[in-house]
Amino acid sequence: MDKINLAEKLTGFSDHWSPHTVASYNDHDVMVVKVEGEFKWHSHPDTDDFFLVLQGEVDIEMRDRTVTLRAGEMFVVPKGVEHRPVARQEAHLLLIEPRGTPNTGDPETAAARVSI
Amino acid sequence: MDKINLAEKLTGFSDHWSPHTVASYNDHDVMVVKVEGEFKWHSHPDTDDFFLVLQGEVDIEMRDRTVTLRAGEMFVVPKGVEHRPVARQEAHLLLIEPRGTPNTGDPETAAARVSI
Repeated sequence: MDKINLAEKLTGFSDHWSPHTVASYNDHDVMVVKVEGEFKWHSHPDTDDFFLVLQGEVDIEMRDRTVTLRAGEMFVVPKGVEHRPVARQEAHLLLIEPRGTPNTGDPETAAARVSI
Repeated sequence: MDKINLAEKLTGFSDHWSPHTVASYNDHDVMVVKVEGEFKWHSHPDTDDFFLVLQGEVDIEMRDRTVTLRAGEMFVVPKGVEHRPVARQEAHLLLIEPRGTPNTGDPETAAARVSI
């Protein structure tokens, strides 16, 4: 395996809310994603949800509060907690989830998982 | 849980090779660490080893090659692969390992795991 330059990986695509897998770690996918606008409310019953902001600003809305993350800030949404990421302008994130976890919490509406 | 500002967490300590846990994610510790100089050669038989450089430059030496990582670059050392991180000047890393994994690969010589 080679080293992974996250900014370089992010130049390889432009679509929003489409996680791109850049590495595998203990049966988890390490992904980069570009986001803008409001995502769906969802939860993951069996896994925590790891967010690290690489560029821009993202609100992680939960039903009882909102956490605003900027570059260099991270947050773990505990399993089962409903949340919705919202970005007023394009932002870039590093995500980690068990391999194959549907990004919407529902396999029927999930984005295809792409490796780059 | 609150958001985690990685740079802010790194201002809270100065010792090298002492991982400080900043979050828990799916039974893994998410840690920040300051490194300088040469670490021990070691391997982790049961877990991959996740490195993301936040500041500075680190060589991940393996027996057959060396990968040089700068800020914004990451690498996963596969389980069982002998490696040694080396930093000519102080560098700051984000690490992820299953909770309680000894940083040297050996519980007898491992740094105490501290939460901040």
